[in-house]
Amino acid sequence: MSLLVVGTVAFDAIETPFGKTDKILGGAATYIGLAASYFTKNINLVSVVGGDFPSENISMLNRHHINTNGLQIKKDQKTFFWAGKYHNDMNSRDTLITELNVLETFDPIVPDEYQDCEFLMLGNLSPQVQLQVLAQLKNRPKLIVLDTMNFWMDIALDDLKKIISKVDVLTVNDGEARQLSGEYSLVKAAQKILAMGPKYLIIKKGEHGALLFNEEQVFYAPALPLEEVFDPTGAGDSFAGGFIGYLAHTKDISFDNMKRAIIFGSATASFCVEKFGTENLVGLTQNQVDERVQEFIDLVQFDISLV
Amino acid sequence: MSLLVVGTVAFDAIETPFGKTDKILGGAATYIGLAASYFTKNINLVSVVGGDFPSENISMLNRHHINTNGLQIKKDQKTFFWAGKYHNDMNSRDTLITELNVLETFDPIVPDEYQDCEFLMLGNLSPQVQLQVLAQLKNRPKLIVLDTMNFWMDIALDDLKKIISKVDVLTVNDGEARQLSGEYSLVKAAQKILAMGPKYLIIKKGEHGALLFNEEQVFYAPALPLEEVFDPTGAGDSFAGGFIGYLAHTKDISFDNMKRAIIFGSATASFCVEKFGTENLVGLTQNQVDERVQEFIDLVQFDISLV
Repeated sequence: MSLLVVGTVAFDAIETPFGKTDKILGGAATYIGLAASYFTKNINLVSVVGGDFPSENISMLNRHHINTNGLQIKKDQKTFFWAGKYHNDMNSRDTLITELNVLETFDPIVPDEYQDCEFLMLGNLSPQVQLQVLAQLKNRPKLIVLDTMNFWMDIALDDLKKIISKVDVLTVNDGEARQLSGEYSLVKAAQKILAMGPKYLIIKKGEHGALLFNEEQVFYAPALPLEEVFDPTGAGDSFAGGFIGYLAHTKDISFDNMKRAIIFGSATASFCVEKFGTENLVGLTQNQVDERVQEFIDLVQFDISLV
Repeated sequence: MSLLVVGTVAFDAIETPFGKTDKILGGAATYIGLAASYFTKNINLVSVVGGDFPSENISMLNRHHINTNGLQIKKDQKTFFWAGKYHNDMNSRDTLITELNVLETFDPIVPDEYQDCEFLMLGNLSPQVQLQVLAQLKNRPKLIVLDTMNFWMDIALDDLKKIISKVDVLTVNDGEARQLSGEYSLVKAAQKILAMGPKYLIIKKGEHGALLFNEEQVFYAPALPLEEVFDPTGAGDSFAGGFIGYLAHTKDISFDNMKRAIIFGSATASFCVEKFGTENLVGLTQNQVDERVQEFIDLVQFDISLV
């Protein structure tokens, strides 16, 4: 049994108030896979890169228990490239360059050896590609988590609604939840989105934490107040990776265990933003992760007896 | 021993996407007093109104255990009046009218019978008036909580820093914490503000909850996701009132008890925003308050064992 991660593997060039990078490793599936690797050791990747993608990056993913046999390498093409610049508040950003390259013709292929997939994480990608992946799976996974963004709501809403109707958990940010539902109140937005099919909705609020909804319950996890947020790129993906990695490890998809998974996801994301790109997600120790989770516990713990 | 509340008692005219009011009862001290009344029964008010202030409002405050002997009534003047309009996101607003009226010449007088004050809540007012109140107290209260806003940072920063240096707890919103400290990171902002004198800082983040800092610890309390936020006016004041009301009731000013006080403050504020003005803060039952607090507990409770 394994975790299948589908999403982009990319180059990013990032500018924040704290500095600027050349092309560095990025992509939703990269962040998801690295984050999940701290919780589960059986991760399969479906993605695509070009001939310009360094083999060291692939070795690094493999060292993090990520099987790259499903990573297509298009020798004569170039890897997907995104460049962006964050504003001073780090909550908003401008896209400077988007070169789709290999993504333009990406035809995902799920290798036979991945068919035992019990947990499926569909990282942010065209809903069309996400649907193609799902169609190739002979058995429905125990849990399907979908991440998406406003871009697909703008240009591919019908396909997006199709894939949303087929998954168990949808993760979007607060602005996207509002856009998708047409409701400003997140409680009402959640009701409308859950009516589209998913049993669970996670609304990511960045520095303000994350909300988990099902039809009857709601859970609010804070975000750790950090001294420096160096680079928010990949925070949402790291969150999703930690979330599904923890679920895949524990094999328990109850609401109570999802609450725990959100804390582990938040802890993983908090590492991500402390350095540029994936730098801080490579080679963490179990001890570091546990200490960070303990900080979350301490941050929100209070003791009230009403009786 | 008692709780002394100093602040405005006012008329507000409020416009939100959900409707519009004529002149209704408002003012920081009104919200603070009403909120605190659900936790402590010995509340003394220092404020000022004009001859146009209805005696029914005063009776209503008295029914909520608020002693109004320190409420000056200037027969030939008018009560402070504020009119504002909230934007669609309910997080920002425009001030349409500010008529200072009685506030223009407000000379606060602390009656002798208020001198046993153990807990002092300085609601949002001119720092000059806040300093005058403090100077009249023969004994320093056990705990002084100060609420203020960006307006005073703009026009009276020196006096504001003077009063900040004399209090135990400062409450501001996130934008104000950033303005006062010159730091974007709330962790760094908290360090700088605590260096100005207060032992505790509460950063109010509206729908995103509230943070409590002292020099070593931090606590993050969520806000209840609400189906409707009808009118945010007075939310911060209700929060502060519930906070200090709970502390005055329990007489325990440890960090752990302040965490509880923040949950009770948040619960009280969540009632406030569900209707216009003070409407929903009048005549709540203990049961309603307890149920709301239980919702907060359920909202954030999770159970992780790292051992």
